[in-house]
Amino acid sequence: MRLLLLNPNTTQTLTDRLATSARRVLPHQVELLPITAHEGFPYISSRAEVQIAGAAVLSMLADRVNSFDAAIIAAFGDPGLDAARELFDLPVVGMSEAAILTALALGRRFAFVTFSPWLAPWYEEQVTRTGVESRFAGTFTPNANFCSISDVAHDLRQPLTETCRRAATHADVVILTGAPIAGLARDIACEVPAVLLDPIQAAALHAFALHRLHPLGANAGSFSRPPAKESAGLPEPLSSWIAWKRSRKKGQNDST
Amino acid sequence: MRLLLLNPNTTQTLTDRLATSARRVLPHQVELLPITAHEGFPYISSRAEVQIAGAAVLSMLADRVNSFDAAIIAAFGDPGLDAARELFDLPVVGMSEAAILTALALGRRFAFVTFSPWLAPWYEEQVTRTGVESRFAGTFTPNANFCSISDVAHDLRQPLTETCRRAATHADVVILTGAPIAGLARDIACEVPAVLLDPIQAAALHAFALHRLHPLGANAGSFSRPPAKESAGLPEPLSSWIAWKRSRKKGQNDST
Amino acid sequence: MRLLLLNPNTTQTLTDRLATSARRVLPHQVELLPITAHEGFPYISSRAEVQIAGAAVLSMLADRVNSFDAAIIAAFGDPGLDAARELFDLPVVGMSEAAILTALALGRRFAFVTFSPWLAPWYEEQVTRTGVESRFAGTFTPNANFCSISDVAHDLRQPLTETCRRAATHADVVILTGAPIAGLARDIACEVPAVLLDPIQAAALHAFALHRLHPLGANAGSFSRPPAKESAGLPEPLSSWIAWKRSRKKGQNDST
Amino acid sequence: MRLLLLNPNTTQTLTDRLATSARRVLPHQVELLPITAHEGFPYISSRAEVQIAGAAVLSMLADRVNSFDAAIIAAFGDPGLDAARELFDLPVVGMSEAAILTALALGRRFAFVTFSPWLAPWYEEQVTRTGVESRFAGTFTPNANFCSISDVAHDLRQPLTETCRRAATHADVVILTGAPIAGLARDIACEVPAVLLDPIQAAALHAFALHRLHPLGANAGSFSRPPAKESAGLPEPLSSWIAWKRSRKKGQNDST
Amino acid sequence: MRLLLLNPNTTQTLTDRLATSARRVLPHQVELLPITAHEGFPYISSRAEVQIAGAAVLSMLADRVNSFDAAIIAAFGDPGLDAARELFDLPVVGMSEAAILTALALGRRFAFVTFSPWLAPWYEEQVTRTGVESRFAGTFTPNANFCSISDVAHDLRQPLTETCRRAATHADVVILTGAPIAGLARDIACEVPAVLLDPIQAAALHAFALHRLHPLGANAGSFSRPPAKESAGLPEPLSSWIAWKRSRKKGQNDST
Amino acid sequence: MRLLLLNPNTTQTLTDRLATSARRVLPHQVELLPITAHEGFPYISSRAEVQIAGAAVLSMLADRVNSFDAAIIAAFGDPGLDAARELFDLPVVGMSEAAILTALALGRRFAFVTFSPWLAPWYEEQVTRTGVESRFAGTFTPNANFCSISDVAHDLRQPLTETCRRAATHADVVILTGAPIAGLARDIACEVPAVLLDPIQAAALHAFALHRLHPLGANAGSFSRPPAKESAGLPEPLSSWIAWKRSRKKGQNDST
Repeated sequence: MRLLLLNPNTTQTLTDRLATSARRVLPHQVELLPITAHEGFPYISSRAEVQIAGAAVLSMLADRVNSFDAAIIAAFGDPGLDAARELFDLPVVGMSEAAILTALALGRRFAFVTFSPWLAPWYEEQVTRTGVESRFAGTFTPNANFCSISDVAHDLRQPLTETCRRAATHADVVILTGAPIAGLARDIACEVPAVLLDPIQAAALHAFALHRLHPLGANAGSFSRPPAKESAGLPEPLSSWIAWKRSRKKGQNDST
Repeated sequence: MRLLLLNPNTTQTLTDRLATSARRVLPHQVELLPITAHEGFPYISSRAEVQIAGAAVLSMLADRVNSFDAAIIAAFGDPGLDAARELFDLPVVGMSEAAILTALALGRRFAFVTFSPWLAPWYEEQVTRTGVESRFAGTFTPNANFCSISDVAHDLRQPLTETCRRAATHADVVILTGAPIAGLARDIACEVPAVLLDPIQAAALHAFALHRLHPLGANAGSFSRPPAKESAGLPEPLSSWIAWKRSRKKGQNDST
Repeated sequence: MRLLLLNPNTTQTLTDRLATSARRVLPHQVELLPITAHEGFPYISSRAEVQIAGAAVLSMLADRVNSFDAAIIAAFGDPGLDAARELFDLPVVGMSEAAILTALALGRRFAFVTFSPWLAPWYEEQVTRTGVESRFAGTFTPNANFCSISDVAHDLRQPLTETCRRAATHADVVILTGAPIAGLARDIACEVPAVLLDPIQAAALHAFALHRLHPLGANAGSFSRPPAKESAGLPEPLSSWIAWKRSRKKGQNDST
Repeated sequence: MRLLLLNPNTTQTLTDRLATSARRVLPHQVELLPITAHEGFPYISSRAEVQIAGAAVLSMLADRVNSFDAAIIAAFGDPGLDAARELFDLPVVGMSEAAILTALALGRRFAFVTFSPWLAPWYEEQVTRTGVESRFAGTFTPNANFCSISDVAHDLRQPLTETCRRAATHADVVILTGAPIAGLARDIACEVPAVLLDPIQAAALHAFALHRLHPLGANAGSFSRPPAKESAGLPEPLSSWIAWKRSRKKGQNDST
Repeated sequence: MRLLLLNPNTTQTLTDRLATSARRVLPHQVELLPITAHEGFPYISSRAEVQIAGAAVLSMLADRVNSFDAAIIAAFGDPGLDAARELFDLPVVGMSEAAILTALALGRRFAFVTFSPWLAPWYEEQVTRTGVESRFAGTFTPNANFCSISDVAHDLRQPLTETCRRAATHADVVILTGAPIAGLARDIACEVPAVLLDPIQAAALHAFALHRLHPLGANAGSFSRPPAKESAGLPEPLSSWIAWKRSRKKGQNDST
Repeated sequence: MRLLLLNPNTTQTLTDRLATSARRVLPHQVELLPITAHEGFPYISSRAEVQIAGAAVLSMLADRVNSFDAAIIAAFGDPGLDAARELFDLPVVGMSEAAILTALALGRRFAFVTFSPWLAPWYEEQVTRTGVESRFAGTFTPNANFCSISDVAHDLRQPLTETCRRAATHADVVILTGAPIAGLARDIACEVPAVLLDPIQAAALHAFALHRLHPLGANAGSFSRPPAKESAGLPEPLSSWIAWKRSRKKGQNDST
């Protein structure tokens, strides 16, 4: 199975960090292929940036849809997720959705822990989108600053661990959100009395599971591919895909 | 007051239709200036198309933010609405949100009537986004075909009227959704025993009201303008705006 | 357009305060006519008082329905709102409902700030009635006393500003509730990092918008005028109106 | 125990019908004393009528609060219920609330059956007010006309039984709503494969239970008696009660 | 009326405590018969223990269904409640459900107070099961330890009273949960500015009310007795009951 | 990895059917070991049967907890799931929960299709328990009878396919529920314009994913193992496990 890890951020070190964490849980028969966006932002962290990144994600996927069995959109906030599911018939997985759904199978209540309070309202919109507010215990953040997004997992390790402990008094499962702290969950797991979840690991295993289930794209439902439509100004091959001038080559990658 | 009617569809006749309907309710001191997208789709009607259009809307707004007092995103599904509110400090209004909020002030339950069942699930996601499911009575569509999106208001007038009557047995307010049927509400109002609402009219009056309220953009909350950020590959002037190399000239258009 | 500002409280200074704030945002073509209740309470602040005031509001409206184009019920808690909408076919707007619906168009989460914790549970019932609990961030009150309802805006200005700042860490929009602090939002807007909303201004612009939309009363739905019914002991002209011995003179005030 | 059955409708035959049904389930030590409103409507059936009746109910209760141990507001829609609970410290029970809460203890899902589709939206607002939408299966009405409100239980017996059977395919418990069909549940119980509930019986037993529990009025919470307040134009003894010029004589009726 | 108080815990002193409190509110014509489980746990306090106790409850009920008019499952968490309602046609009442439903008739918001934070998440699942999250103000516990479950009402009286006062700032009604503190509500009622509720008293009066209503088991709905079914390894007489080899002797205990 | 498929029904042919379907999607490194209950019911289909089966499931798991890496409770309704998660620290997966969570990643709305309307209310309680009512489109059943639970997949293939098509007009994903129709989804997938889901396949892949994530049991949260407790009358080794006289031998099966 060929699995695309699509990082919509333009920072290569984040991609590396995410791929390392994902590979730790993926079974050996999965070939994980990470790519990093060339256009967009170093680190997506607002509604506007998600909106812009979401359109770019569709373009990147249109380009690669025939080379992969499944894809992960590897940024919290899942830019372009619903649109990608509608447009393409390979399984597409979002990091925040996968983390939330996995948490629901590990306890009654889940919480987010992240490194910046700035992101909390936007993170919580992911919970609303998934429709599981009744099982959400809130977003917890440390009162600590950091110098660089790349070093946040190292610099804030102690305050983040304490924040996780605080979250654990309200939740059965704690999701450590944000690509810059991917991998941290494993390092601090035994210091926190709750189940810790690393979103990229949840996403990787979700993608594997959906591929094994072979869910064919709905061919008439609300997530079926929309009818062919002309467009203006869109990048190739996205415009071709939307105009049905290209299609997915079935069978090519359908084995494990 | 200068009000931008931004049609993210590329079809000029839809823009004309929307502007005509909006002007019917706007007070004389509002100058409505309609523009039509050059890039994108003739008529946005799927999640993927909204995703792509949303990014284009931000670019169109960045270009014009200093020439207007308020803006309407004139496509159902409100492409780019939350992102635009975060990024710009002029009032930005979405057609579906404005219609829903106005309906809530005219009765207990509202319904959508539209011309194609294909669009129903996507329309209903707007209700979920607004968080008012408990007051929504469903989407109703006629069992009738149409030849062209431009003629649907004329060709389906009778079946749409009957559909509105059916919706009226479940709802106090009926929203006639979709740019192609803008203006129809007025024509059939006396044939339907419910309040009929034309979304572009609701949006136009919403924009007027928000402008009169002078709501300054939050300068620290979750909808404040995000910190300056470099980006790659974004069109000018959107990238400049996001990098805070341009700002809104306050005061210039702040009078009515 | 002739707009009735109906203050169900018996305190004239509150009416003046509300009218001043409303006039600041209304366009020049609207003639605002404030009246103050003769019967009832100096300041409505409990469920029982709303219940009693609601009945009085219907009576006051029945008396004036033919002289106005729209009406505002200018007390938080919206006494008699749904009943008035059912009974009369001019647009009737409530201060709390208008503030809530306007807040929903200015951010994801809104909060109330008011001057007395006593009122919080009752205020929150307005959110439940509107069906938007998922977007509500709570009611915030200062820990400070005041001597007189008339001076509360002045005496508590500093504690209320601080309370608004506290609310702003949880909400994008802060609604300053209660007639005694009408107008305060404008004075402290630049000290608070959130959008501040003055309910009477929201209500005034809502009434203007609904009048421009010309929403005819539903003539068969759940908000249509109930069938003629005899009654005993009701004040004139309310009993006549309910018995259909009087009707609204259409057309008389239908121009702007 | 002295239990007041307060019928806010002005029709004596409805009072008789309700009292007969209530007495069937009340234990012998309860003395039920029914009264009929002198002012108001023959049969309350709209939001406006509930609003007006609610104020009258408070007045009737203020007059009798010292002669009773508990009171039932015997009209669907519970006019004045929350206000009465706030104002008086004897247990006050509403017919629709009591029926809904009792239904929740007899099955997962409950439905309403009533004689007129006109009332459905208003009935459903009671469910929303109680906050139990997730357990509500809808309102079912027969497609049949009736001549007089007094004879509806007799004239529509067959269509109502069939409607109950239809409701039983969606609900575990069926509430037969509306004073005019009080008592019918018992007559048709063995023809319907669901639990049938008569609201006045649920209310009578609720009042008995709350009296036995001796719930003292909260003396500081949101349902505690509001501070003394002057008023204008209110009927005696309501104005005296609200001004704290009268109080409940504790102990007088506190025995069973 | 013969009312079974079934304590699924194996501790006799808890049964005594519960029976004493229940008898205080039951009318004289009710004969309360308490029994204590022989198998299971001294004090049920986890999901696993509720699961196991629930099966035992069914067995105990099958044994006694013909000797009683109604039954109370006297442990918080209501082990086996829905299953018992489905299987048997006498009214079965749960302590937590009865307390919650009674609280809804005494105020807008209710809270739990209990003696151990360990139990909070599990208690809150009862609120979710009942579907009334929107009226729940949370679970409050003291920061105090206790030596023995039997003495907790005495040892923690002061901290529990303070906790109730804290809860009263968020709720109109406070439910004192857990069999070990049955009866405490009465002792501290005048020290807390909210309505205090003792769950076993609510349950006892609920059982009385449901018996007076004579709700026959639905004979076709989702809570009707399931079709006869063979089983393996179940204790007698539960297996006979499920196989319809035994039935309830109607009429035997149908008088008060 | 050793994965236990625990069928709480006593019918061996159902176990075979479920194991066959699960093996189709599991990767080769997973050894699936199915067992069938000796005590209980041939086919669990009511709340009472789930209650009884849930207790038996705990006993079966206590017996085997040291020989497996993860376990599937293979009956719709997930008997004993929350209790098992609390008690044991290996991943435990329920068939209905896994199907629901997987469906949420494949579309906006999901529906159930099953072979008997009798089961619908009980099935829908699973949706409520998961807290995702807002994404549920209902339960659909054919109007057709069947002779034996073992042959239902064959006998009702045509009506079930048509029912799936009907469900597909309301939902993006259709879950084919009930062990007797395990495997059917694959056979009819190309006849239905929606994504079809086989719950046992979803559960098998869920168990694999949770094992790969190595979620340690929370050691202090609400799903941590309860403190040691004595019990009476429980089967060995469940009583030993609850008394902490036995523990999970960590490390033994911790490799894949």
